[in-house]
Amino acid sequence: MAHPHLLSRLIQPSRQIQASIKSIRSFTNTTSALAKVDLIRPNHKSLNLDDVNHFRAIFKDRPGSVLSSLENDPKRIEKFDLEAFNNDWLNKYHGNSQLVLKPKTTEEVSKIVSYCVKNRLAICPQGGNTGLVGGSVPVFDEIIVNLSGLSNIRSFDETSGIITVDSGCVLQSVDDFLKSKGFIFPLDLGAKGSCHIGGNIATNAGGLRLLRYGSLHGSVLGLEVVLPDEDGTILSNGMKCGLRKDNTGYDLKQLFIGSEGTLGIITGATVLTPPRPVTTNVALLPVDNYDTIKEIYALCRQKLGEILSAFEFFDQSCFNVVLRHTQQANPFSDPQSQGFYVLIETSGSNKEHDEQKLESLMEALLERSIVADGILAQDETQFNSIWSFRELIPESLGKHGPTYKYDLSIPMPLMYSLVEQTRQRLIEHGLLSPDGSEGDLIKCVSGYGHVGDGNLHLNIVAKRWDPKVESVLEPWIYELVTSYNGSISAEHGVGLMKLPYIKFSKDSKNLSILKSLKGLFDPFSILNPNKFI
Amino acid sequence: MAHPHLLSRLIQPSRQIQASIKSIRSFTNTTSALAKVDLIRPNHKSLNLDDVNHFRAIFKDRPGSVLSSLENDPKRIEKFDLEAFNNDWLNKYHGNSQLVLKPKTTEEVSKIVSYCVKNRLAICPQGGNTGLVGGSVPVFDEIIVNLSGLSNIRSFDETSGIITVDSGCVLQSVDDFLKSKGFIFPLDLGAKGSCHIGGNIATNAGGLRLLRYGSLHGSVLGLEVVLPDEDGTILSNGMKCGLRKDNTGYDLKQLFIGSEGTLGIITGATVLTPPRPVTTNVALLPVDNYDTIKEIYALCRQKLGEILSAFEFFDQSCFNVVLRHTQQANPFSDPQSQGFYVLIETSGSNKEHDEQKLESLMEALLERSIVADGILAQDETQFNSIWSFRELIPESLGKHGPTYKYDLSIPMPLMYSLVEQTRQRLIEHGLLSPDGSEGDLIKCVSGYGHVGDGNLHLNIVAKRWDPKVESVLEPWIYELVTSYNGSISAEHGVGLMKLPYIKFSKDSKNLSILKSLKGLFDPFSILNPNKFI
Repeated sequence: MAHPHLLSRLIQPSRQIQASIKSIRSFTNTTSALAKVDLIRPNHKSLNLDDVNHFRAIFKDRPGSVLSSLENDPKRIEKFDLEAFNNDWLNKYHGNSQLVLKPKTTEEVSKIVSYCVKNRLAICPQGGNTGLVGGSVPVFDEIIVNLSGLSNIRSFDETSGIITVDSGCVLQSVDDFLKSKGFIFPLDLGAKGSCHIGGNIATNAGGLRLLRYGSLHGSVLGLEVVLPDEDGTILSNGMKCGLRKDNTGYDLKQLFIGSEGTLGIITGATVLTPPRPVTTNVALLPVDNYDTIKEIYALCRQKLGEILSAFEFFDQSCFNVVLRHTQQANPFSDPQSQGFYVLIETSGSNKEHDEQKLESLMEALLERSIVADGILAQDETQFNSIWSFRELIPESLGKHGPTYKYDLSIPMPLMYSLVEQTRQRLIEHGLLSPDGSEGDLIKCVSGYGHVGDGNLHLNIVAKRWDPKVESVLEPWIYELVTSYNGSISAEHGVGLMKLPYIKFSKDSKNLSILKSLKGLFDPFSILNPNKFI
Repeated sequence: MAHPHLLSRLIQPSRQIQASIKSIRSFTNTTSALAKVDLIRPNHKSLNLDDVNHFRAIFKDRPGSVLSSLENDPKRIEKFDLEAFNNDWLNKYHGNSQLVLKPKTTEEVSKIVSYCVKNRLAICPQGGNTGLVGGSVPVFDEIIVNLSGLSNIRSFDETSGIITVDSGCVLQSVDDFLKSKGFIFPLDLGAKGSCHIGGNIATNAGGLRLLRYGSLHGSVLGLEVVLPDEDGTILSNGMKCGLRKDNTGYDLKQLFIGSEGTLGIITGATVLTPPRPVTTNVALLPVDNYDTIKEIYALCRQKLGEILSAFEFFDQSCFNVVLRHTQQANPFSDPQSQGFYVLIETSGSNKEHDEQKLESLMEALLERSIVADGILAQDETQFNSIWSFRELIPESLGKHGPTYKYDLSIPMPLMYSLVEQTRQRLIEHGLLSPDGSEGDLIKCVSGYGHVGDGNLHLNIVAKRWDPKVESVLEPWIYELVTSYNGSISAEHGVGLMKLPYIKFSKDSKNLSILKSLKGLFDPFSILNPNKFI
């Protein structure tokens, strides 16, 4: 095993990602995603100055709470100011909203929704706007209800670890609060510095530590939701801080987890948080084929057991783009071209025990010649550096070129064959060189993801946006995933991007029930129209 | 600390419970639970011989699949034979069904449901019939669809630990299968030898190890459900073995978890199962007050961390009735009257590490004089004996006398004050002696439960069923729990028992949505009418 290698400490990945939005933007494609969707603006009313003035009255003219670009509005903000709200994080989807509302309380959200339902004005609820499928920006001129003003931690119970927060709380800030109390938020993802808890829940975010702490369907104990009815009803379901179990009636809150803002606006959440691990370790191992990763995973389950908290992989292509497009140094002492890299994290309550377990794993891996090299972080700096290397992959790919991104769920043993088959298909269609290196149109095909969850992030980096790429890849990739009994969206959601393809993961009976539920909660289709349903 | 004490090995608790149903029956109350519910038989059709013959045709006259007690039915089984299906486990609730159907496939369930919907015949779906709230037996003459014939394990993925089973599989048999593969079912409860996976999911069962593995809302990845429409539609949602994540659309399956058979009949389930712990330990500690239990819990979280898998408590009263009504010997070398007992279980992957953690906990407890005595199981026999002591509590209380049972969810620090306040109230009403000992009508008030989950099982053992007891306790106890922001059902469900009281845990808006959902899925109220909605 190689000696630990000290990397320079990096700033938080989420900030890096924020800072580099501009560079990504130059590669983005503004129309292709919508090409296959037959979108017609629903028969909603168009916004007028009376509406805007009504909202100003709700907010008692609080500065910054009503941002309007409506023509003839004497108080209007220049259209430019609404850009950050109308365009998504990757600048791929663009709405034309003329009004952004920034409520600070659930009651204000209720008043907004009530007015909009009565007046048939459509709404796009918006959290941190870090989604990847166009779910958090308007499609047409929906009013944007931005939740960032709802940012209070309402209560925390130190005995049970149950926290109640406003939905606009930023994930990182909630986790920082929990850290001070000895607890951890059961969700972690690259965008934690910007994304909101409400958005995480509305999109059923998965992230880096689902392997350890499970899905939000298990962790979220209660939700406060404003319903799209004439009263703007505030539904409180399971919002009892300190209460883990409640078995009275259908578990309504579950419907809103992953509903992508189409059934109600989440304004508050009660979440069960686990005790924060006392000690964490991370290892990065280069291996020469994907089958070896499966072997390592089996050994990790055996040797690390309950302390295994993340098991991630990325391929050589990801490794190379991170080195090329970021300040990250090669974490290994030698140049590497092993093909695959495995990141293993442990989290536990006893430093000595965890280190022994990790040593026992490493010994077994070396003895069996499964790996010949690897890094074990020796301090927090190295820990952060290794994690940063993994978390910088999406940004690096974006810097490398326009990236066609697929978030696929597939039985773990089959994961990497999807990357290989994609490469093969692009070669056959003459878009990639016959040996898999850069071709006329495609720079590289890269795979990384959450092995432990069977979640592959497949990325095709092109030289330019070209409809040819999409026509070669879609619906072929969705058909392929479906043939493996996979899902076309593991954790990103459907949003606008996968609207035409949801039928690959949901049959007509399921879809018809989804539509009935939408009709039950939102009969006038006020909330986030054209998003997946 | 006391020396470990060897107890004789006991048979599986679930079998003991089965064997003693008769002795419990003599104490049961056949009418009081219904006294406060205004039940009117819905306007369903009454069963006739043509219906019975139709079902016989569905089953192609397979012996044992159609049990009818209908008058004038030449093939009818004596009414006595339907008793086991018409009466619940505790013999507290009694239906009058004239027909029990025992399908063996999902398609047969679909044909039954389709016929019943078209002909407006009501159905009571039934699993292992081990529920405690009258949810699994008919209220009037609903046709009983007993799922015990659907008992195949459909598939298991050894990489991901994902299993797909028929809903009629018995929990114990699924766990036995998983044991042979190195995995464990993420749910465990006393009735495991009889209860079905489908029933567990339909009632959102909690049980003994929710603390470690979380709720079924997190573990269940997919459900196959027959819907109450004219086609008897078979809805398959997330039933892809080997697939952990799917983020496409509302998570429909969640609605059926805890729906108590009122929205659809669960016929199959896909569940994520964790690796089976390599090593388990259990300790039983006597303590002299409830506040100490809170201190021990905090220390357990600190010292045991991720290996803590159960944290249960019971009071002196429970301890005494187990000694009195079972073959269990006193697990301690001396007579005990400490007042409270804590059961701590660890499950982990490394025997030595787990024992060290447990030793470190014990040292801290002794050093701080939190406990002075205790048992640490030294082998599997002792492990089973200590668990049996805990699991025999419900049966022992039943043997002691007619038991008023409340399953309450309440913030952990307040849990035992509910027991004390109940005792006080019964004293004030002259039903218990002023010193809390046996009174004119009440023998004892006992508390036990899942401390880690804030789930109290409050039991009032009477000398006889007497409406006076209920009138003193209800709705007082539900009002009290509500005033503490608790829930009137932590894990048993609502069923028929708590139908009049659901308003204490769900406000009118929630109830109105529950009703709309019921109407959407089951417009003719075919499935399990009169159960909680």
